[in-house]
Amino acid sequence: MTAPFATLDEFRQTLEGQSGPDMASIAGAKERNGQLTKPPGALGRLEDLAIWYAGWRDTDRPQITAPQVIVFAGNHGVCAQGVSAFPPEVTVQMVANFEHGGAAINQLAKAFGAKMDVHALDLEMPTQDFTVAPAMSEAEVVLALSTGWNAVDPASDVLVVGEMGIGNTTSAAAVAAAVLGGSAQDWTGRGTGVDDDGLARKTDVVARGLARHDTSDPLEALRCLGGRELAAMAGAIAAARTHRIPVILDGFICSAAAATLEKAVEGALDHAVAGHLSAEGAHAKLLDALGKQPILSLGLRLGEGSGGALAIGVLQAAVACHSGMATFAEAGVAAG
Amino acid sequence: MTAPFATLDEFRQTLEGQSGPDMASIAGAKERNGQLTKPPGALGRLEDLAIWYAGWRDTDRPQITAPQVIVFAGNHGVCAQGVSAFPPEVTVQMVANFEHGGAAINQLAKAFGAKMDVHALDLEMPTQDFTVAPAMSEAEVVLALSTGWNAVDPASDVLVVGEMGIGNTTSAAAVAAAVLGGSAQDWTGRGTGVDDDGLARKTDVVARGLARHDTSDPLEALRCLGGRELAAMAGAIAAARTHRIPVILDGFICSAAAATLEKAVEGALDHAVAGHLSAEGAHAKLLDALGKQPILSLGLRLGEGSGGALAIGVLQAAVACHSGMATFAEAGVAAG
Repeated sequence: MTAPFATLDEFRQTLEGQSGPDMASIAGAKERNGQLTKPPGALGRLEDLAIWYAGWRDTDRPQITAPQVIVFAGNHGVCAQGVSAFPPEVTVQMVANFEHGGAAINQLAKAFGAKMDVHALDLEMPTQDFTVAPAMSEAEVVLALSTGWNAVDPASDVLVVGEMGIGNTTSAAAVAAAVLGGSAQDWTGRGTGVDDDGLARKTDVVARGLARHDTSDPLEALRCLGGRELAAMAGAIAAARTHRIPVILDGFICSAAAATLEKAVEGALDHAVAGHLSAEGAHAKLLDALGKQPILSLGLRLGEGSGGALAIGVLQAAVACHSGMATFAEAGVAAG
Repeated sequence: MTAPFATLDEFRQTLEGQSGPDMASIAGAKERNGQLTKPPGALGRLEDLAIWYAGWRDTDRPQITAPQVIVFAGNHGVCAQGVSAFPPEVTVQMVANFEHGGAAINQLAKAFGAKMDVHALDLEMPTQDFTVAPAMSEAEVVLALSTGWNAVDPASDVLVVGEMGIGNTTSAAAVAAAVLGGSAQDWTGRGTGVDDDGLARKTDVVARGLARHDTSDPLEALRCLGGRELAAMAGAIAAARTHRIPVILDGFICSAAAATLEKAVEGALDHAVAGHLSAEGAHAKLLDALGKQPILSLGLRLGEGSGGALAIGVLQAAVACHSGMATFAEAGVAAG
């Protein structure tokens, strides 16, 4: 299905027209959960995850057989301001690494049986430096959203989106500050590992970006301060909702991109859970603002979709327990 | 390999004679970790897990291909005191459920490619009620330790041990209090879900058990207050060390059984990590006492090895990243 929008306003209308979870499937899944051979609530969060997943898959006994991981890569004009410990050439080098199977996300996708796709978005043409101009024109941001939308395989049954883009924690911090409020300092962290001077430089860059643009509209914040890979993640997350594919969010950058959807249309992330809590400074605050409790907290701060992919295993386990366990009646076990 | 002990003292000597991790493999794994295509430390705890695992597998580039999950079941004389919300018949009913593939642990073992074995330990002959007599004779506890020891497949490469036994959170609380100190109240929780009266009854039972026996020796605590499934778990964890198979601990009961090893011989759990933080009240305190940080915290309180099995996925992912990723040199990526 080709992306059903050609402007930011049409994208917003697409979000507004999306449907919610199937309440009958949720009710059926809750009833089944209460009959499984375990004390009530003994599987903790796994029970909640399975019931949530059932609601988006329109069945009270779902399966996970086709996870998809998509990594989007983009380059950032704001790198000219010295915001990263790595040179921008690393973005294209890492795309080659993804394509050759050598990155962390390749191993994680394989470990959990996920198909992995990589989309490099006009790497030779970085976004504009957002301290001097909007990062993208409307045509550019809509193209990136569409690329993300079209990258989702409608036959997949869980989606993780990840990113690669030297400089993109700066971009994500600016987007988060614009859509969630607060200062540049509140949202700017060390990314791949800048020192104190680098952090001060990043924070100043974010503050200048916020002062430069009118970002009262969350999708305008995505356009003016984001990057192509952030927009593509947002487009893919929105497409997954249309295909009724639950999403596992990755870390800070993915969550910042996702936040633009939730702030544009409340509830636009109801089909998404937070895969993990990243070690990137402001991720906890970002997840709090989205009302999402992370599944994992293992100190990852890599991006690429790595934390989201790791959580696929937990979601698979949750759904396998829910749909595969015997009921008390089936097993002839006394229900206490 | 048949269990190399016939008395509790010989079991203690076996523990004392066990070897540590291979420092050369750890050094090699650390060096490799520093060359992988990611910013330093960006995989967080996954990096630590992979390096730890390498040390016990005697290679700087390990694989996980053969996880084993073993569930031990036992019955408890202390059930006569009304300590559980479930009748003791449920133990044998759940063993049948394990054998027919209907329990949570069956789905979890399958989800992560683990072979699963079930050992029912003299279910028709519960341990003695520890408020009136030692739970087991020395011959009985040694038999249970040996059953656990012999249940470990030397060809497996990660081990999870779990349990089923109506009444066994009471037993585990008593063992934990005996070997780690503190009062009955400190260690007694709601188990599968007793109400306030039940909790008060359990706490009193634990206090009476502690007063009844001399448990200054941790292995004596296991004998007098434990159960056959707790002893079998301890035996299996010890056998895994001999076979150089890293162990993922499950929840409160598994951790209490494991604590008897660590308190008998310091370092006896160095080859084990904590799979998860259980919702059973005192598990956090127990892991603190063992110096173990849980991998997962998802509110599980089921036992059966469920939380340990869930963490197999994380360990597999950690090892897959470590051993499968390209180095900066291999991938032609600038190292920052």
